[in-house]
Amino acid sequence: MNNPHRIVLASDNCAGVHPRVMQAIAEANHGQVSSYGYDPYTQVAIQEFKKILGENIEVLFVSNGTGANVTALSSMIQPFEAVVAAQTSHLHEDECGAPERITGCKFISVPSQNGKITVDQIQRTLVRVGDEHRSQVRVVSITQSTEYGTVYTLEEIREIADFCHKNQLFLHVDGARIANAAAALGVGFREMLRDTGADAVSFGATKNGLMMGEAIIFFGKNRFPNAKYFRKQNMQLASKMRFLSAQFIPYLAENIWLQNAEHANRMAKLFYQKAKHLPITFTQKVEVNVVFAILPPEIIEPLQEKFYFYVWNEYTNEVRLMFSFQTTEKEVEKLVLELEKLLK
Amino acid sequence: MNNPHRIVLASDNCAGVHPRVMQAIAEANHGQVSSYGYDPYTQVAIQEFKKILGENIEVLFVSNGTGANVTALSSMIQPFEAVVAAQTSHLHEDECGAPERITGCKFISVPSQNGKITVDQIQRTLVRVGDEHRSQVRVVSITQSTEYGTVYTLEEIREIADFCHKNQLFLHVDGARIANAAAALGVGFREMLRDTGADAVSFGATKNGLMMGEAIIFFGKNRFPNAKYFRKQNMQLASKMRFLSAQFIPYLAENIWLQNAEHANRMAKLFYQKAKHLPITFTQKVEVNVVFAILPPEIIEPLQEKFYFYVWNEYTNEVRLMFSFQTTEKEVEKLVLELEKLLK
Amino acid sequence: MNNPHRIVLASDNCAGVHPRVMQAIAEANHGQVSSYGYDPYTQVAIQEFKKILGENIEVLFVSNGTGANVTALSSMIQPFEAVVAAQTSHLHEDECGAPERITGCKFISVPSQNGKITVDQIQRTLVRVGDEHRSQVRVVSITQSTEYGTVYTLEEIREIADFCHKNQLFLHVDGARIANAAAALGVGFREMLRDTGADAVSFGATKNGLMMGEAIIFFGKNRFPNAKYFRKQNMQLASKMRFLSAQFIPYLAENIWLQNAEHANRMAKLFYQKAKHLPITFTQKVEVNVVFAILPPEIIEPLQEKFYFYVWNEYTNEVRLMFSFQTTEKEVEKLVLELEKLLK
Amino acid sequence: MNNPHRIVLASDNCAGVHPRVMQAIAEANHGQVSSYGYDPYTQVAIQEFKKILGENIEVLFVSNGTGANVTALSSMIQPFEAVVAAQTSHLHEDECGAPERITGCKFISVPSQNGKITVDQIQRTLVRVGDEHRSQVRVVSITQSTEYGTVYTLEEIREIADFCHKNQLFLHVDGARIANAAAALGVGFREMLRDTGADAVSFGATKNGLMMGEAIIFFGKNRFPNAKYFRKQNMQLASKMRFLSAQFIPYLAENIWLQNAEHANRMAKLFYQKAKHLPITFTQKVEVNVVFAILPPEIIEPLQEKFYFYVWNEYTNEVRLMFSFQTTEKEVEKLVLELEKLLK
Repeated sequence: MNNPHRIVLASDNCAGVHPRVMQAIAEANHGQVSSYGYDPYTQVAIQEFKKILGENIEVLFVSNGTGANVTALSSMIQPFEAVVAAQTSHLHEDECGAPERITGCKFISVPSQNGKITVDQIQRTLVRVGDEHRSQVRVVSITQSTEYGTVYTLEEIREIADFCHKNQLFLHVDGARIANAAAALGVGFREMLRDTGADAVSFGATKNGLMMGEAIIFFGKNRFPNAKYFRKQNMQLASKMRFLSAQFIPYLAENIWLQNAEHANRMAKLFYQKAKHLPITFTQKVEVNVVFAILPPEIIEPLQEKFYFYVWNEYTNEVRLMFSFQTTEKEVEKLVLELEKLLK
Repeated sequence: MNNPHRIVLASDNCAGVHPRVMQAIAEANHGQVSSYGYDPYTQVAIQEFKKILGENIEVLFVSNGTGANVTALSSMIQPFEAVVAAQTSHLHEDECGAPERITGCKFISVPSQNGKITVDQIQRTLVRVGDEHRSQVRVVSITQSTEYGTVYTLEEIREIADFCHKNQLFLHVDGARIANAAAALGVGFREMLRDTGADAVSFGATKNGLMMGEAIIFFGKNRFPNAKYFRKQNMQLASKMRFLSAQFIPYLAENIWLQNAEHANRMAKLFYQKAKHLPITFTQKVEVNVVFAILPPEIIEPLQEKFYFYVWNEYTNEVRLMFSFQTTEKEVEKLVLELEKLLK
Repeated sequence: MNNPHRIVLASDNCAGVHPRVMQAIAEANHGQVSSYGYDPYTQVAIQEFKKILGENIEVLFVSNGTGANVTALSSMIQPFEAVVAAQTSHLHEDECGAPERITGCKFISVPSQNGKITVDQIQRTLVRVGDEHRSQVRVVSITQSTEYGTVYTLEEIREIADFCHKNQLFLHVDGARIANAAAALGVGFREMLRDTGADAVSFGATKNGLMMGEAIIFFGKNRFPNAKYFRKQNMQLASKMRFLSAQFIPYLAENIWLQNAEHANRMAKLFYQKAKHLPITFTQKVEVNVVFAILPPEIIEPLQEKFYFYVWNEYTNEVRLMFSFQTTEKEVEKLVLELEKLLK
Repeated sequence: MNNPHRIVLASDNCAGVHPRVMQAIAEANHGQVSSYGYDPYTQVAIQEFKKILGENIEVLFVSNGTGANVTALSSMIQPFEAVVAAQTSHLHEDECGAPERITGCKFISVPSQNGKITVDQIQRTLVRVGDEHRSQVRVVSITQSTEYGTVYTLEEIREIADFCHKNQLFLHVDGARIANAAAALGVGFREMLRDTGADAVSFGATKNGLMMGEAIIFFGKNRFPNAKYFRKQNMQLASKMRFLSAQFIPYLAENIWLQNAEHANRMAKLFYQKAKHLPITFTQKVEVNVVFAILPPEIIEPLQEKFYFYVWNEYTNEVRLMFSFQTTEKEVEKLVLELEKLLK
């Protein structure tokens, strides 16, 4: 539970709303407009996505990240088909079974140490194609950046996408932290997603400065024409949509996505630079805005008195420290100091 | 589609956000807090509900009205059970099958001319209790105010609730326009909902001045302990929950709900008073903020050039005119004038 | 519960297995063969269907009638679409919500006095096409013969099928008593189903002399290619399939379907001829093997001591008397005598 | 596909029906009786189960093994809960996603080399109890004997059951080959299932001499009172139930289960004894009626010309040889001879 005196490193969704985004919301509160996305703000927001990703896309705004993942997948798959994703993925670990219950599909988990999966692993799930006793793999879902803070390179994404298309599979990207990945790679969304061959993206922004609302992007037109029905049936269609979509206008047009993501990534790296000499084990490469580390068990509770963060693995005492666009350098320094103190 | 020059009477969800609610959202944008409802704003919002409805309730904030209905029902019912609701209800007509798909249950429709259902009608659905071949009725869902702008009296609600409880059924109220009903009846929510015996309410506020977000209220504690899981699995759990819940604080504490609802209701009645002499047929009693009327087919399109509204029944030329908290007297007068002109 | 001394008129599924069908089952018990339908018996049974219905069909054997209906529909529809069927249909009344839960779809009920629905009624459900808030009608399901013992004429089926195809809908026929209908109309299955334009049939035979197992027939090849997966996922794929499919071989090839259905129909008509002078109200036309009648409430229980049948409507004292291929003339005569005695 | 000249080792469900079981089916074809299990045969079959397993059980006959698994689990679990089972289990590999789609639950897979899982593995899935973001584990499902022909000892089952009950979990046993396991262990069903603490069993018999139909056994009365509704909703309720249930009467009362299982097990062991000197790798312990072995790839197709069996793992050339109650010693000898010939 929240304690206002603690510094928050539990999740980037504990952060607030970027002021420019808040301003856009306030400005959208003008007059009466059509509901359910047939309003001018939503149209402009879609145009902003097209400027970045190209004309040939479909954009659907939804209420939240789980809703984005499940609705994108619902639109791409039949209930007797299967989705392959890392065992560590949000789909498998953090959506309370929504993927299975709502799509009706089997979600096949592939072991992963760092949140990433490989073509070899996907290949091995493609057995008994056409056998009605087995759920037929139709979608591969990867997370960029991953739940473990690692980032697929463009080559890795392209290799997976190519493999998918050779095998009549679709590639879905869970982009809850897509901006952090793009910032880390120093590339744009078009290079990272469209040019590599992704078919659909859950384009997250809430963790990076929006208030709420995410976007589903499908590459290509009319490839998944049922998506609008699934958005409604999956309870993801906001009536006063303009207040979701308006947030994306400055976020995309004014590069807020990049500033916020670069800042958050920098805070994680700053912490890592300052803490790497300490007697703790860093369990993942620090590529974006999160650090995983094994702490001595006796310092975890004392540290939690001043810093709000999660123990990620109760068995190994691995903790997750998540930095947001609102984390300050001062907070990072306090964390390092406190760690140094406790580790003595 | 939206035309900024038309006066909007299509739905009360075309209206914007009440300024005091917008201010509360902006004020909630302060610092980092726990996500998913474990923040102080959500706790205060729950307290505001308890001040109005009594201590012994559970409150869950969700993303939208369909999500509120489906999540409330998911928590009260097993897949082999059934919900009884008016054929005209939002559940049956406007949720794209989400109720059936997500709960897995059968939704039994009861014919209704005015949006209301009766104990007699419910009684007749209670056949073959215990027979495994038939979905077993477990919940009755009524809409207050109804989709046809009518309002159940307290006695009618109590009669249905009593009947439900005698037959081991639960009573759910779809309160998408619950404030308009309370305003029309001149009673508080406690008298209308708790004292009559409702078990659960989808407490809507988006149509009456909020930006987005609704609340599920369960009367009694721990009666539906699975609700929190269903909220997540139904993709209704917002990460930055404070921005949903904070809206309810002034809405409830400062009687914004009542001011807005009274205004919207008054606009509908003003229109009716001024238009009742015209040669059009009013098909429903005007009790809240909506008017249903049959117009001569040849004037519908010309009227739609200046006013944005829906033809409700293509076969009878019945139209729906929905007034919101933002509708002005001047707009009502323009509508009357235009109608008079076209009807000449 | 069963009382061996009562004459059974509760349902035609209380009857046993026709001796010739039982013999076919015994003969199929020879050696080891491929499971799941890849056996020679199943291939022959499919050929028998093709002899009757034409080459251009798909045949899938399933475990039971509810399974046939739900699996046929699963294969034809997406979860955001809807099925229109009579309120009195087995789909709506007797499948414990399996249609909704398994397909995820909305089932729209159309009122019916005699079990039949009309093009006008279907037409009225086709509103808001393309509107994502409303489940989109995709399939019309009619029952032949109906749950009320009435029979659609070929013209009526053709009219519905034509309407469906003009509106991009599919026509499904629940044929739990399809043989009784064909016998009543004096036509073959091809004339009744294929030539009229049905797209899919749940071809029932269990009530007419089989042990268990029904067939789904799709007219046309590869129109519903997912059906084999849905059969498995819907738990309708028998491992030792030969014992299901072998039953259909003599049933179709030796006209057992016709003999049995004609006999059962004749028993119902015999009863009606002998009882029509009695002071009871026959509520439906007697076209196949069932009679619906309103009895004086005081004679129902005494009659049930000797005859096992269902009260169909507790409010009106309507009873259902169902005659099977095993009902004898003597049993019919006993029933008439007993009724005459009790009505005195 | 079937070739009558090949010896069948593909699956024990390629075998036919034991003559005594076939006789029981024929004898049940006498007169008209109540349908859906309210018939005397079903009552006797339930009594036979009670003689073996004790009075305090519930028995539900269903159509097939996937139906038994899914219906048992549906009755024990809520959609936001999870089932833990071996990655190699029928639930995960061979039911086309029916478990996920029908229960709505997440199925967590635990790696297994021999088809068995351990308490340690289950323990590790029990994280974040009460956290609404994660499917809550409620059921552990083990297969006895496993899909790899291994058998849990009584101690292993008891240890898992004890662990389950300490953690408010239920233990389900997929007993598709439960008789083979009991025969291998030399114990009765009561010792193996009830005395060890299982909560529910999918009691399979089709693979061991029945025609079709399986039984769900719940230990304890009224613990899962919704099961009868789920059986119907899951399309597992046969109308002419007597023909399913009657098979179990001689099967249980006359120890056919034991004779058949012992024979099939013996055939597998006979083969293993005669083949173990050959230059092939046996990949699993031979405990019941199946042998897994890696064959030189070049002999697989030639061997399949005379013997019908499956390649279990395309990557390793592991094959599965399944022996049934109808396999003869002569067939085993032919297989050994052919192998010897091909391996030269």
